[in-house]
Amino acid sequence: MEREDTTAVLDGVGLVEPRSVTIAPPPDSFLLDCGESLSPVTVAYETYGRLNADRSNAVLVAHAFSGDAHAAGWHRGDRKPGWWHDMIGPGRAFDTDRFFIVCSNVLGGCRGTTGPSTVDPATGRPFGGSFPPVTIPDMVRVQACLLDHLGIDTLLSVAGGSMGGQQVLEWLVSYSGRTRSAIVCATAAKHSPQQIAFNEVGRQAILSDPNWNHGDYYGGERPAGGLSVARMVGHITYMSDTSMSEKFGRRVCPDGRSHPFGNGFEVEDYLHHKGSSFVERFDANSYLYITRAIDEYDAARGGSLAAAFEGLEARVLVMSFGSDWLYPSYQSQHVVRACKRAGVEVSYCEVPSTYGHDAFLLEVDEQTRLITHFLRTVEEEG
Amino acid sequence: MEREDTTAVLDGVGLVEPRSVTIAPPPDSFLLDCGESLSPVTVAYETYGRLNADRSNAVLVAHAFSGDAHAAGWHRGDRKPGWWHDMIGPGRAFDTDRFFIVCSNVLGGCRGTTGPSTVDPATGRPFGGSFPPVTIPDMVRVQACLLDHLGIDTLLSVAGGSMGGQQVLEWLVSYSGRTRSAIVCATAAKHSPQQIAFNEVGRQAILSDPNWNHGDYYGGERPAGGLSVARMVGHITYMSDTSMSEKFGRRVCPDGRSHPFGNGFEVEDYLHHKGSSFVERFDANSYLYITRAIDEYDAARGGSLAAAFEGLEARVLVMSFGSDWLYPSYQSQHVVRACKRAGVEVSYCEVPSTYGHDAFLLEVDEQTRLITHFLRTVEEEG
Repeated sequence: MEREDTTAVLDGVGLVEPRSVTIAPPPDSFLLDCGESLSPVTVAYETYGRLNADRSNAVLVAHAFSGDAHAAGWHRGDRKPGWWHDMIGPGRAFDTDRFFIVCSNVLGGCRGTTGPSTVDPATGRPFGGSFPPVTIPDMVRVQACLLDHLGIDTLLSVAGGSMGGQQVLEWLVSYSGRTRSAIVCATAAKHSPQQIAFNEVGRQAILSDPNWNHGDYYGGERPAGGLSVARMVGHITYMSDTSMSEKFGRRVCPDGRSHPFGNGFEVEDYLHHKGSSFVERFDANSYLYITRAIDEYDAARGGSLAAAFEGLEARVLVMSFGSDWLYPSYQSQHVVRACKRAGVEVSYCEVPSTYGHDAFLLEVDEQTRLITHFLRTVEEEG
Repeated sequence: MEREDTTAVLDGVGLVEPRSVTIAPPPDSFLLDCGESLSPVTVAYETYGRLNADRSNAVLVAHAFSGDAHAAGWHRGDRKPGWWHDMIGPGRAFDTDRFFIVCSNVLGGCRGTTGPSTVDPATGRPFGGSFPPVTIPDMVRVQACLLDHLGIDTLLSVAGGSMGGQQVLEWLVSYSGRTRSAIVCATAAKHSPQQIAFNEVGRQAILSDPNWNHGDYYGGERPAGGLSVARMVGHITYMSDTSMSEKFGRRVCPDGRSHPFGNGFEVEDYLHHKGSSFVERFDANSYLYITRAIDEYDAARGGSLAAAFEGLEARVLVMSFGSDWLYPSYQSQHVVRACKRAGVEVSYCEVPSTYGHDAFLLEVDEQTRLITHFLRTVEEEG
């Protein structure tokens, strides 16, 4: 018997539809921090739950570097749900019975929002390396335009981890009046040289791939080798020494020795798989543009973060994860201290975890407890 | 006035001469763990100090992955001395007034010892990718042949850090009767999946460079881009979050923004420089062969390290470094515990340092104190 309604087996928010909106259509244009303008800008987004009558229950969720607007539920035919699926849905941390959740793909991305793979209206060809440089503040201004389009003036909260956390900090700094609270996971107000260095290795892997061709590769071979190597580096930094030991040990794949110069270890096979599957879904130029924005970002603009938070009325929840060595807890504690100095109401928890940086995607139970309690407090204050 | 004797300004062991010896000349051959043989095998080495009359004061120093036989002193015209220069010389940790120090380049290397860039006598062309796989035990057996050539039956000690430390462990496991002591710095009896993963990223960067050409590139363009990226990854793992922050912060180079897609941070410039200078002195195929050997190595051969150390009469000194996250202290402590279980006389120190894995090259004072005391104890027992 053929199943007619596939949603019956899909938990959480079930089947979801990708949406998009055009902002800054000609003759308008969207002004970037670099001084250049884009027109139009397409923004891919999804929403879950319902906006209430007084438009006071909206929560913006910001994705991490390689994420997209598909935060929860399934697209028709997909085998995997959105990237924060276990955190978003009825009764979940971001409870769709109470909140209206919005998630959009970032400017410069390759998952529906305008980026280097978009066709430049001036030439009729993809921007490639001629796409203007974008910043985290640019990305956040695009999100603000999306909220304007959705008729949302003030957010109940804005939440995100890693690069998503940087966007949350930018909301606090640049749109403090538009959100009543913020949830900042596993992030840094500015990248350390070690974080910059890992991103730079990824960029150099792409730039040294002859197929990169100064960013002009959309008609031909893509820089798959370089992008794959970049992703492998990333995956090491997303896990912890402990989680890798638990997941792989020194086990060897049955057919592992077929890889030249490897020893056939499962961890090698895992990295190859992660590298080659990333190439299927991500654009190398977006890798370059977005990592540059992440590295350049400094929420305090070279000054004191406490000064940047001065006068902030939003309530803030900060979370870090014990084994996250890419975004170590001291970086989150720096944000917490700045909040306290600025008189901002802030809660902080270092969640125990062996998952490394991936913990913000995987430690569902503890994050759910913390976020549920936090959002209830924000609602009650409203 | 022209200075006639340049050695006057060169401290430590002063000017030194590279040497080499041929082992297993035809019709003899050197049998490898893989079952294949090499003939002849050239070994590049250097010595410092004098072998005493009863040949009892020899210390073998084993280099790390990208090191070579030039451990101390200067070659004529060089601007920089050998890699452990501050540790080897009159009155230093490895005191050349008392000890005869030997250091040789490893099998599979590219600094004078037979490796993939050596001409294969059977074809008249460099081995390239047809060079047989080598192991840490193979490297150590070549060192044993060198000592035979030098007329040294028993070492006073064998010392090394990182991959050099693996060779020291292999001396203990396979030639326990030939050394009276061992100094094991910043190493592991077997690589963790995280350590394997970092090496695999380096290998994939090289293998995905079209110039690699299955290892057959000696007549043409070398895979410089891939090798450079591999080295950049390495350098991040050799430093610590703290040492990178202290050395670079978020400072920007005056001409930094000329690098495409970087932000011109000093740390980016440092990585570019380290990558491109490595390409000048190291062979990509040696990178592949040696890292494979490191990853594959297991001093305990899949069993218990304590069992592998059973009956060992050598005295052992183990050192790790507080901020070394590539070879964390728990791996050294694993070696120490195995020694204790096997009844081996072992001392251990975690040296406080912010230098990360590089500490075994940089923390001269504390290592000097520990090694000086240790070697004096070994001498007095003799």
